[in-house]
Amino acid sequence: MAVLLSTLATEIVIPVAAVIGIVFSLVQWFIVSRVKVTLERHAPPAGPNSNKNGFNDYLIEEEEGLHDQNVVAKCAEIQNAISEGATSFLFTEYQYVGVFMVVFAILIFLFLGSVEGFSTKSQPCTYDAQRTCKPALATAIFSTVAFVLGGVTSILSGFLGMKIATYANARTTLEARKGVGKAFIVAFRSGAVMGFLLAANGLLVLYITINVFKVYYGDDWEGLFESITGYGLGGSAMALFGRVGGGIYTKAADVGADLVGKVERNIPEDDPRNPAVIADNVGDNVGDIAGMGSDLFGSYAESSCAALVVASISSFGINHEFTSMLYPLLISSMGILICLITTLFATDFFEIKAVKEIEPALKKQLIISTVLMTVGIAIISWIALPSSFTIYNFGVQKVVKNWQLFLCVAVGLWAGLIIGFVTEYYTSNAYSPVQDVADSCRTGAATNVIFGLALGYKSVIIPIFAIAVSIFVSFSFAAMYGIAVAALGMLSTIATGLAIDAYGPISDNAGGIAEMAGMSHRIRERTDALDAAGNTTAAIGKGFAIGSAALVSLALFGAFVSRAAISTVDVLTPKVFIGLIVGAMLPTGFSAMTMKSVGSAALKMVEEVRRQFNTIPGLMEGTAKPSYATCVKISTDASIKEMIPPGALVILTPLIVGTLFGVETLSGVLAGSLVSGVQVAISASNTGGAWDNAKKYIEAGASEHARTLGPKGSDPHKAAVIGDTIGDPLKDTSGPSLNILIKLMAVESLVFAPFFATHGGLLFKIF
Amino acid sequence: MAVLLSTLATEIVIPVAAVIGIVFSLVQWFIVSRVKVTLERHAPPAGPNSNKNGFNDYLIEEEEGLHDQNVVAKCAEIQNAISEGATSFLFTEYQYVGVFMVVFAILIFLFLGSVEGFSTKSQPCTYDAQRTCKPALATAIFSTVAFVLGGVTSILSGFLGMKIATYANARTTLEARKGVGKAFIVAFRSGAVMGFLLAANGLLVLYITINVFKVYYGDDWEGLFESITGYGLGGSAMALFGRVGGGIYTKAADVGADLVGKVERNIPEDDPRNPAVIADNVGDNVGDIAGMGSDLFGSYAESSCAALVVASISSFGINHEFTSMLYPLLISSMGILICLITTLFATDFFEIKAVKEIEPALKKQLIISTVLMTVGIAIISWIALPSSFTIYNFGVQKVVKNWQLFLCVAVGLWAGLIIGFVTEYYTSNAYSPVQDVADSCRTGAATNVIFGLALGYKSVIIPIFAIAVSIFVSFSFAAMYGIAVAALGMLSTIATGLAIDAYGPISDNAGGIAEMAGMSHRIRERTDALDAAGNTTAAIGKGFAIGSAALVSLALFGAFVSRAAISTVDVLTPKVFIGLIVGAMLPTGFSAMTMKSVGSAALKMVEEVRRQFNTIPGLMEGTAKPSYATCVKISTDASIKEMIPPGALVILTPLIVGTLFGVETLSGVLAGSLVSGVQVAISASNTGGAWDNAKKYIEAGASEHARTLGPKGSDPHKAAVIGDTIGDPLKDTSGPSLNILIKLMAVESLVFAPFFATHGGLLFKIF
Repeated sequence: MAVLLSTLATEIVIPVAAVIGIVFSLVQWFIVSRVKVTLERHAPPAGPNSNKNGFNDYLIEEEEGLHDQNVVAKCAEIQNAISEGATSFLFTEYQYVGVFMVVFAILIFLFLGSVEGFSTKSQPCTYDAQRTCKPALATAIFSTVAFVLGGVTSILSGFLGMKIATYANARTTLEARKGVGKAFIVAFRSGAVMGFLLAANGLLVLYITINVFKVYYGDDWEGLFESITGYGLGGSAMALFGRVGGGIYTKAADVGADLVGKVERNIPEDDPRNPAVIADNVGDNVGDIAGMGSDLFGSYAESSCAALVVASISSFGINHEFTSMLYPLLISSMGILICLITTLFATDFFEIKAVKEIEPALKKQLIISTVLMTVGIAIISWIALPSSFTIYNFGVQKVVKNWQLFLCVAVGLWAGLIIGFVTEYYTSNAYSPVQDVADSCRTGAATNVIFGLALGYKSVIIPIFAIAVSIFVSFSFAAMYGIAVAALGMLSTIATGLAIDAYGPISDNAGGIAEMAGMSHRIRERTDALDAAGNTTAAIGKGFAIGSAALVSLALFGAFVSRAAISTVDVLTPKVFIGLIVGAMLPTGFSAMTMKSVGSAALKMVEEVRRQFNTIPGLMEGTAKPSYATCVKISTDASIKEMIPPGALVILTPLIVGTLFGVETLSGVLAGSLVSGVQVAISASNTGGAWDNAKKYIEAGASEHARTLGPKGSDPHKAAVIGDTIGDPLKDTSGPSLNILIKLMAVESLVFAPFFATHGGLLFKIF
Repeated sequence: MAVLLSTLATEIVIPVAAVIGIVFSLVQWFIVSRVKVTLERHAPPAGPNSNKNGFNDYLIEEEEGLHDQNVVAKCAEIQNAISEGATSFLFTEYQYVGVFMVVFAILIFLFLGSVEGFSTKSQPCTYDAQRTCKPALATAIFSTVAFVLGGVTSILSGFLGMKIATYANARTTLEARKGVGKAFIVAFRSGAVMGFLLAANGLLVLYITINVFKVYYGDDWEGLFESITGYGLGGSAMALFGRVGGGIYTKAADVGADLVGKVERNIPEDDPRNPAVIADNVGDNVGDIAGMGSDLFGSYAESSCAALVVASISSFGINHEFTSMLYPLLISSMGILICLITTLFATDFFEIKAVKEIEPALKKQLIISTVLMTVGIAIISWIALPSSFTIYNFGVQKVVKNWQLFLCVAVGLWAGLIIGFVTEYYTSNAYSPVQDVADSCRTGAATNVIFGLALGYKSVIIPIFAIAVSIFVSFSFAAMYGIAVAALGMLSTIATGLAIDAYGPISDNAGGIAEMAGMSHRIRERTDALDAAGNTTAAIGKGFAIGSAALVSLALFGAFVSRAAISTVDVLTPKVFIGLIVGAMLPTGFSAMTMKSVGSAALKMVEEVRRQFNTIPGLMEGTAKPSYATCVKISTDASIKEMIPPGALVILTPLIVGTLFGVETLSGVLAGSLVSGVQVAISASNTGGAWDNAKKYIEAGASEHARTLGPKGSDPHKAAVIGDTIGDPLKDTSGPSLNILIKLMAVESLVFAPFFATHGGLLFKIF
């Protein structure tokens, strides 16, 4: 059963791929950094340069006042304000999250340690009672360490992403003076910096952790990979706070700024007179960038952990086949290389010259990475897997062929592409669904909302079928291991996905900076075009995130069930069914909390913005400056305060249900929240994305039809703005937080499974 | 094991209770009919009269032009137009539905007949192979007959309800001249006519059907009660079209009328100049009355059938204990008597004198009926059940005590009350949730929508816990039989529930007639107050409908699983899991269809209304009459056309899934759509109800806070109108249709179970 790739080669290939990813991201960063936002007092006149995609070319368009040092200075100032606001928010958030992390780490240690009464003696293994495994106390300690590592990596991912984005935003604005293609490349390269840094970093830390833990665990792979799941839990727990806190921050500022600025005062979006404008731009970075970075890192960590823990009790684990065991990490390594090639297609092989080329270019990224990755998966499956092996399937070992496992990964990968395309169809204003929504604005905001909600609901259908087919195929071939690697397949092109995803908020910020710096409307039009494509890509990114979350949490759920030693989760038992129906309620309860939070925080913001407009003389005339800092503070305080209840709901539910009602009810809760959460999440992000782009469709007025609805300030446009505002918390707060909800509850249940299996179900034991 | 109530007594008690119900409803109708809407040309002057609640009293308030024969004539004319519109729509709907019924009846016969190849030979029984049962062909024939009977009874229920409501609306208007209390009683009595007629009629038809079928089946109770399930299917299938068609009709007209009338032309609601005003009032009767009547009749029929079919394979059925077997029908009989007493509390024991007494009076109805019914259930359980018996529980017989079964029914009954109260809390403008939503209108429609959606999501939490507890208790005590009787318990006070529910649309119509007949604003204020309470009761009614639907469909699901001979529905098998996730998607897909339908139909209506305002000279000035008929026709055509795709989705899904994928996947689909549909349905009706009442809160201006938001026409009020319009399809089309979706799919699966078990799962058989 020897595989082509030797253990030594595996030990080399994975870290090398990770390092290549990191180097590539640094190169991209270096290229971006050549756009200067500092004053070039004695800059030599730019000469001809043969570098095709460098940034010293002759200027494509000169009329935009490219040498206006004033504009550059202003951009630098705004960029600084945004960066400071974001950094200060994240540090505040991390203080609270840090406290949580310490408390929860202690909890993990105590709960898991108590399984065998903190005994230091080795125990018979759970799945193979013949052999001896490390004590539960060791699992408790190592799980805690892995949890902390996962949490820190997640925080780092979010923070670095934010730093890169706030570094890139003003540079994108400045490049927009040269043309839309130049601006696109800066934004996209910056996205790539984030994408590759995250993917590579996540892989490297996980790889090192495994190797370090192995020093203690030795041949006890069961215990080793059980502890490793703490890494996924840490990643996801931080992601939850990042998404929820960041999501509330960004939307409170956005909604508050729009309600007073656009609706009451009739000043444009991102107008520097609006006191909430800096907070709004900070929000894009802490919510859409840092939050999303943490989120996708969490998905990646969890799907890897789920695959590893299932594999550890399969023939790979039992026979100690290291290369096959690390198949999930090899897939990720291959993913980094494939994404690297894919990125070159956007940045170097082709050049974007017109607005209408942006969306196709991004779509091409998805297609190229998927096609190449299919080949990559085939190669890895061929060299790293034995032709036949067995997988643990709820009590029995199931024989799987290597080509079957290849199909599992591939089906996940392609399901991701389908979800991406469907999302694009429903949220891009190039197609009829969004145009219909825009058209419904003729009869006012009410029809706009009705059509938008209907669009969101409808957009769920095909993604669910795609997910169902992937589940069926991978489940049938390789049980829970199949599901886990299908999730990995969907996430294997994460670097490209993140690059595309991060590009949106960067463009959004760039537009904000252009407006605030008082640059010409042509610059704004260009950044708006980038941003419209960004709304679609953001929705695609959210589609990937939720699709992979569904698969990941199912895999984790399966691992939990195996670990908790239950062999069936029968809907026809009262314990399971009540779990199912209550679990299905959690996504709506969670959404209620987060939406209300955004609403309340936005109302506070509205009051403050109104107060400033009413009390600061000369503000509307542009002769006085608003106090940006108070608005930043309102968003910060509100989001920190409001992220706690929904966070507690998600984190406490598995603990309470598992402890009081036991593993059967908890299984029901996980299954229920999974199947209902997916629907709510997809419809929420797509509805929001569609409303945003319906508004942009009317504003851009690019077609005959669009012009009959516009221009800005017309009644249909006003109706569209209302829809856009409603969509904000749906698409950027509650929707994307839901995928963390379903993943986090599953991974938490998995980590605590030994405790629940031993001490859980108190309530039923008492009665 | 003899029970106190003899078989003979049972045979007498049930039909007698039904007849009492029918007589009571006729008495109420007679009292209502004494309000004259015809011209009393030679009417003698009304003399003093000692009849306490008669309608010949001295007039409480004389100033409203009570003797203005003109007003009476106008009311009669409008009433006539509404009644004609409603009748003509229902007849059109029934033509289409009739065709469907014939086709589907043939399908049932063919599918079920094919189970044993249309053999006429007797077969060994399914659950007791020792005994001989009637052939599958007999089940096919009798199921088909029961289906047709259920369908016809459902149609009759809806039609009679509509007739009563259109008879009562103008009478309520005329009585409103005398005072709010008089108007309330007319509306409530009319509601009671409908409630009792439906409850008694449903019981009687079912009872007669059982007795007639028994002539053929004799001792083969297994086959007998299996065929009876066709009755539930027929009832529910008609209810689906009634709810969806009626829901689209009413909301297309309502939204269309509001968008042009209130928003564009700034004329009041129900203004006779608005061409869609008759269609709007027709809609209340065909959607909220006929649709709801069919819906609740369907729930009642299905829960009875579910309980009977489960009981037929329990000790009652095996030992042929007739009284215990008919326990579900005895509960319903007792329910009619209890509701009769309860009604007297509203109509005769107390008198309503002020607006603020309306809601408490309705709430009292719920409390009184629940308390009395608890005693009633205890009595029935004591006299009709042996102290101990066995229940079929997925392959094994489970011992149940009579007090345990009492608890099952009682827990359902009280869960219904809790759901009712929670719904009232979230949708009545007397409490803070709706007031908060109204307050959020200060900052515009967007915050109103965000807060409203959050309210709807939040309002799901307690009802779900109430449902979960009922399920857990009744499931633990008596498996699926427990669930079925819990559903029956929730529906046992259906006559009161329907009376309260029907009262809302009648008041709504009364207000419309007052406006159209040009009566004074004081009359309108009174009907508005009745209507505001009606919005809350409508939401309560929907809460009951969805709560009972959840229990009913779970019971049907259990019966289906038993009949399909699967003993576990394990989430951890791919076949079940894909069913679960796709099933959870159906409610959103269905909502997308119905909301889009309402939106499109409303747009058509808007065009027509605009056209009439633009082309009919003198329409705005009130000198020319609009063409009401064209608007009625638009609503009719749109709803007939648009009800087909969502109807097909619901009806074809179980057939396709069962035939192609088999019973396991179908089980998953049923469980998934159940747990996710409940959430969507509750949040949709409560969100819509809250928006409607937030608007009414601002309009009524009854508190200091409300006055700061008003008056009519203020910016917050406009924002509230937008919310109200969005809520219309949510609360009256997609929300209430969803409970039919979950019930209907379950009962359909149950009826076709023998076919699926024999010939289902083609796709998996091929591969």
